[in-house]
Amino acid sequence: MSEERPILLVTCGDPAGIGPEVAAAAWLDQASHAAARLRIVAEAGVVEAGLEALGASNPPAVVEIEPDDLRSSGPGELLVIPPAKLPRVNLPGHPTGGPSAREADNAKDDKIEQTVAAPARPTAGGGRAAAEAVLAAVGAVRQGLAAGIVTGPLNKAGLAAAGYDLPGHTELLARALGLPDAAASMMLWLPPGPGLASADGLGVVHTTLHERLAAAVGHITQDRIEQAGRRLDAMLRRLLGRQPRLAVAAVNPHAGEAGLFGDEEKRIVGPAVHTLASEGLTVSGPHAADTLFVRAAAGVHDGVVAQYHDQGHIPIKLLGMHRAVNITLGLPIVRTSVAHGTAFDIAGRGVADPSSMKSAILAAAKLAAGPQAATITAAEAPRV
Amino acid sequence: MSEERPILLVTCGDPAGIGPEVAAAAWLDQASHAAARLRIVAEAGVVEAGLEALGASNPPAVVEIEPDDLRSSGPGELLVIPPAKLPRVNLPGHPTGGPSAREADNAKDDKIEQTVAAPARPTAGGGRAAAEAVLAAVGAVRQGLAAGIVTGPLNKAGLAAAGYDLPGHTELLARALGLPDAAASMMLWLPPGPGLASADGLGVVHTTLHERLAAAVGHITQDRIEQAGRRLDAMLRRLLGRQPRLAVAAVNPHAGEAGLFGDEEKRIVGPAVHTLASEGLTVSGPHAADTLFVRAAAGVHDGVVAQYHDQGHIPIKLLGMHRAVNITLGLPIVRTSVAHGTAFDIAGRGVADPSSMKSAILAAAKLAAGPQAATITAAEAPRV
Repeated sequence: MSEERPILLVTCGDPAGIGPEVAAAAWLDQASHAAARLRIVAEAGVVEAGLEALGASNPPAVVEIEPDDLRSSGPGELLVIPPAKLPRVNLPGHPTGGPSAREADNAKDDKIEQTVAAPARPTAGGGRAAAEAVLAAVGAVRQGLAAGIVTGPLNKAGLAAAGYDLPGHTELLARALGLPDAAASMMLWLPPGPGLASADGLGVVHTTLHERLAAAVGHITQDRIEQAGRRLDAMLRRLLGRQPRLAVAAVNPHAGEAGLFGDEEKRIVGPAVHTLASEGLTVSGPHAADTLFVRAAAGVHDGVVAQYHDQGHIPIKLLGMHRAVNITLGLPIVRTSVAHGTAFDIAGRGVADPSSMKSAILAAAKLAAGPQAATITAAEAPRV
Repeated sequence: MSEERPILLVTCGDPAGIGPEVAAAAWLDQASHAAARLRIVAEAGVVEAGLEALGASNPPAVVEIEPDDLRSSGPGELLVIPPAKLPRVNLPGHPTGGPSAREADNAKDDKIEQTVAAPARPTAGGGRAAAEAVLAAVGAVRQGLAAGIVTGPLNKAGLAAAGYDLPGHTELLARALGLPDAAASMMLWLPPGPGLASADGLGVVHTTLHERLAAAVGHITQDRIEQAGRRLDAMLRRLLGRQPRLAVAAVNPHAGEAGLFGDEEKRIVGPAVHTLASEGLTVSGPHAADTLFVRAAAGVHDGVVAQYHDQGHIPIKLLGMHRAVNITLGLPIVRTSVAHGTAFDIAGRGVADPSSMKSAILAAAKLAAGPQAATITAAEAPRV
């Protein structure tokens, strides 16, 4: 393992969203560069528009570099690598491996003008540019040119308009790495800060996620809870460098009130907690969800398995929406992401909060520098 | 309407829980008496045990008064009215109208000793004493001896052990007033304070509440949402003295992601919001629940209709668990309650946070002093 700071590739997501400006704002923070050698995977124009949105009095020069350039990064000079320069991976199921970079660039240029003239919206061009940058960054990491990816926000409608038939960013990554969609999942990670008593932050994974609540309740199984718990445990070990203290949320109010409000706690959640504990995890539950997150915020737990989307998202967003990070679990590469969307309605005005992008860079740097990251790169990551 | 501060009756809930000590702690706060003339409905011994738990160096004398005594209250003298002195109402469905006060008192004395000797637990005696005090207080309000009730925490298992076949406190009150269980519902009320930007607090009602989540999802109907919205609006008008700004939460993640994750938003929630708006309410929705509460905490909304228990309880507990109050809607009398349970595990040690009891007293005083309270007392409240 090298002593050098890891090279991280940052993508801007949809060029018409707030991605370019939050990436630019994170770049201007010295803390980002103290943790990693950063490069933004984008056309210079996209990043320049992001800098312009910030209205910085003395913006850094935007400099295109080669993919194998090992130089350090810093706030004084913004290093970009255009996607076309990277060994882009193809996306299975897309005849051409996705639309061409040239098409994406053309559409992207349209979008940049649009942010000045009118409120931005999802377009094929924006979706294409966002996907193109991710595929290029994945290719670069697979070829050993970088240690991880930090992604900006894209829009599912834009992705769909560009011909990418994908539920979202995480599935795009799974498929780009030749994995089934279900191989990857997300951990919402709230770094230490206001609202959290613990200096170690709080991670939340979900047993079910992007589906209607009525269906999700039926999809909460012992297997899924156990898998979520194992992934949460593994990721928090890497982030914290110690065994994390996990809690599993109940499905029903009052954790089922001793069976009065449902039996999922006894039938599903309890047995899953028992299995995880028998595997050596430090885990407890099922806990009534409303008070569980109060204790988690007080530092009693490092990680929580939530049973459905809003059960985990409501508390994390309330505790620190702007600094929350999305960390991908189950991939052979390091990937973190902002936890917010494209926010087209405020894009280009320099008012977007860059905290999530900054946190995502720091988390990726920590993961990429860890011993487990090196193991993965050497042993597990497929090579191009 | 009289200029005098309203007379409020405070109950301690289960004598073995933290009720007596939080009631005693609230009594020691001058702010409680600036808002109302308080009396605790309990045997003197219960309140003395509460004071003792607090370990106050110079505790006030506990003085039994008559139900028609109109004197002001203050921290220097703790006024109690034993339940047996009040015109207790009977509970329909209970042959004797519930167990006798004498039985309850005997059991209660056992419980007080128990808190000293061993961890407390739900017992028939505790449940009986709690119910007895509530029935006495309701009778007193119906007879015009007081303007409202503030209740301490009771335990459902204790209530059941005492022969009260009731889901909880709210249903006990509904039945005591001759109403069906469904007539009454609760609003979680978070008074202004840390975590909330608004100086007007935040109210949350639920479309469904104490039932298994899988069943609750099917019980979210347009009618129920509309009724919840109307009750929320009416109560917040009384508390705030102006038209409240309401929001209705979505059922599904991302508010259904334009139909991708469920159609409840289009089929049920949207039409309910439309109906409420057409009735003149200031209301919007359906809103994705995870970001809705961030905006509510920022002061954008005064009240939220949550669709199920944890959707409303997770954010309110996280924003201010200890000061949250339970306000009963749909009753012809003013009733507020602590929003926490009996907390048997910490009872008798003086470590329980009395903020919820203090908030409950202030909220009841505000409601009892309002013009609508007087109207209700004169026109709607059944007389004994």
